[in-house]
Amino acid sequence: MTHKIIIDTDPGIDDAMAIFFAFQSPEIEVLGLTTVYGNIPVSMSARNALTLCDIAGRQDVPVTKGVALPWVGPESDYAHFVHGDDGFGNIDYPPSTREVDPRSSAEFIVEMARKHPGEITLVAIGPLGNIALALRLEPELPKLVKGISIMGGAAFVPGNVTPVAEANIWNDAHAADIVFSADWEVKMFGLDVTLFAPTDPKFVDILAEKNPVMGGFMQKASQFYIDFYSQNRDEKVCFFHDAFPIAHLVKPELFEFTRGNIRVSTDELNRGQTVVAKPGTTASPLWTEAKFVQAATGVKHDELFQLFIDTYAL
Amino acid sequence: MTHKIIIDTDPGIDDAMAIFFAFQSPEIEVLGLTTVYGNIPVSMSARNALTLCDIAGRQDVPVTKGVALPWVGPESDYAHFVHGDDGFGNIDYPPSTREVDPRSSAEFIVEMARKHPGEITLVAIGPLGNIALALRLEPELPKLVKGISIMGGAAFVPGNVTPVAEANIWNDAHAADIVFSADWEVKMFGLDVTLFAPTDPKFVDILAEKNPVMGGFMQKASQFYIDFYSQNRDEKVCFFHDAFPIAHLVKPELFEFTRGNIRVSTDELNRGQTVVAKPGTTASPLWTEAKFVQAATGVKHDELFQLFIDTYAL
Repeated sequence: MTHKIIIDTDPGIDDAMAIFFAFQSPEIEVLGLTTVYGNIPVSMSARNALTLCDIAGRQDVPVTKGVALPWVGPESDYAHFVHGDDGFGNIDYPPSTREVDPRSSAEFIVEMARKHPGEITLVAIGPLGNIALALRLEPELPKLVKGISIMGGAAFVPGNVTPVAEANIWNDAHAADIVFSADWEVKMFGLDVTLFAPTDPKFVDILAEKNPVMGGFMQKASQFYIDFYSQNRDEKVCFFHDAFPIAHLVKPELFEFTRGNIRVSTDELNRGQTVVAKPGTTASPLWTEAKFVQAATGVKHDELFQLFIDTYAL
Repeated sequence: MTHKIIIDTDPGIDDAMAIFFAFQSPEIEVLGLTTVYGNIPVSMSARNALTLCDIAGRQDVPVTKGVALPWVGPESDYAHFVHGDDGFGNIDYPPSTREVDPRSSAEFIVEMARKHPGEITLVAIGPLGNIALALRLEPELPKLVKGISIMGGAAFVPGNVTPVAEANIWNDAHAADIVFSADWEVKMFGLDVTLFAPTDPKFVDILAEKNPVMGGFMQKASQFYIDFYSQNRDEKVCFFHDAFPIAHLVKPELFEFTRGNIRVSTDELNRGQTVVAKPGTTASPLWTEAKFVQAATGVKHDELFQLFIDTYAL
C-alpha cells in the first residue's frame, strides 16, 4: 500500500533523517515538503528542505515556506544549540539553487487535500502553525485528509524544554491546541516513545556505509546533534524523533498506542504541555469534551532501527 | 526528640487516622488542630476535629475554624463521595459539646509560631488556605517555624481529580503556590508516595483490635472510604494519605525524597498541578527562580503500617 504524504518540517537533523527515509521508502509518495519555523527560522527551513531534495535527487518535490511566528506571542527561540547554526550541524553545506514554491505551506496543504480527497496523510514534524492555519483556511480539512501524524508532545512523561513541555508543542502551543481539537484523531509520536528508543552513534556510520549520499550526509550532519544528546551521559547517544511517524506508516505493527482525550496548555507555566486523560480517569468536561488522540507509548526499537537501515540501503 | 506540631486539617477519614496517630505518638506534642474547608465545609471540619479530640480524650487541644473559601474563585466542591456526608463515612457519630477556639486558624498559627519561635512544625493535610493566610498575616512565618510538611500534590505522577492535579492542591491552587513560594523548603507528601503504599482493609481491623476506642472509630469510619477506593479494583484497598507527614516526623528514615524547584499551576486546564523541575532539567526562570520542595518519592510501606499499628497499640 502506498501512502501519499506531505511532510511539514523544520529541518533540522532528525527532520533530514525522516525526509530521506520517506524518499527511500517504496510505500511512501512525498507530495511536498511544507516548511515552518521551529528548530530554525522558516527561511532556513525552506532552504534546508531544498538542499535535502537536491541531495536525494528529488528536485521534483515542491518545497513551500510557511509561518514564521507562533499563533500567539513573539518570535520563538530557535534550537541552534541542538541542530547547529545552519540546522545541519554546522557542516557548511552548499545551498540549493532551486526556488521555493510560491504558495504558503498552509495553502499548499489545502490545495493538495482538495485535489486528493481522503488520500493524504499529513506528517507534521515541527511546530503546528501551518496545520492550524490550514484548518482556518479550510475547516473541512479533517474530512479531506486520510489522517494526521505528528512528532511532538509528552503525554505521560516529562518534557524536554520545560518540566512539562516538548519543544515542538511548546514552540506553538495555541496552534497545537487548535490541531488536537480539530475533528480528527491525531496520531502523536512524542517523548513517550522517542526517548525510549535511543540509538548508538554507530547507527549513522551504518547509514553512511549503506547509502553514501543520504547516509553520508546524515553521518556528517549528526555529529553536532550527537554531541548535544551525549552531554552529561556516560555513552554517546542519539534520538531521531522525527522519523517515527513516517516509520509508523510503513510498519504500524512496531508501535503501541494509548488513547485519551487531549488538551494543550497555553498558560505561561504549563505552556505546551499535552495533557492526556485516559477514558474514565476524570469527570472534568475539560477532557470529557476534548478530542481523542492516539499517543504512541511503545515501539520495538531494534526493528525500527533495522527498518531505517534497510530502507536507506535500497 | 519531641516535635511540637499544629495539624491543619479537614477531617476526613485519613485526617482522623493522622490525628489519632499524632495524639498517640510519644514523640509528638499537638498544639492545636486548625481546620479548613476541603473534604467537607469548614464548619463540619471544626465539628469533626472536636469529635476526634473527644474520642481521644484530648479536650485540652484547641480546635480553630479557618477559611471557608479558596484564595481565588467560588466555593469548592467537597469530597462527600470519598468521606461521606459527615466526613466520617456516614456513621452518625454524636457531635461534641465543646466550642471551637474563637481565633481563626491562621491567627492561631501565627500566635503559636510567635510564642514558640523555631519550635513548631506545621503539618498541613488539607487545602493550604490557612497557611497562605498566615503568611500574609506574618511574612516572617517561615523564620518563626521549624518546618512545614504537607499532604498534597503529585510531582512526577498523574493527579487524582484531574489528569494532573491532586485534590488538596486543586482545591486551593493559588494558596498552594503562595505556600510553596514562601521562604522555606516544604516537605511534600503527595501521590508520588501515598498511592504507592496501599493497605489492606484488614489494617483497620488490626487498629480496632489494638485500640478499641480510636482504632474502633477508624474501623467503623473507614468502611465507606474503603468502598470508594475499591471501586473498579479486584481487591479492597485503602490509602491513608494524611498520616504520612506525621509518620515522617517520627521515623524519617522510612522516606526517600526528590528535591526540585516547584510551581503550582493556577490556570483552568492545569489547576492545582505541582510542577517540579529537578535541578539542571530546565533553564526557564519559571523554575530556576522558584523555591525548592522536598517531594517524598519513596516509603518503606510495611514498616510504615507497622509504625501505625504499634503507635495505636500504645
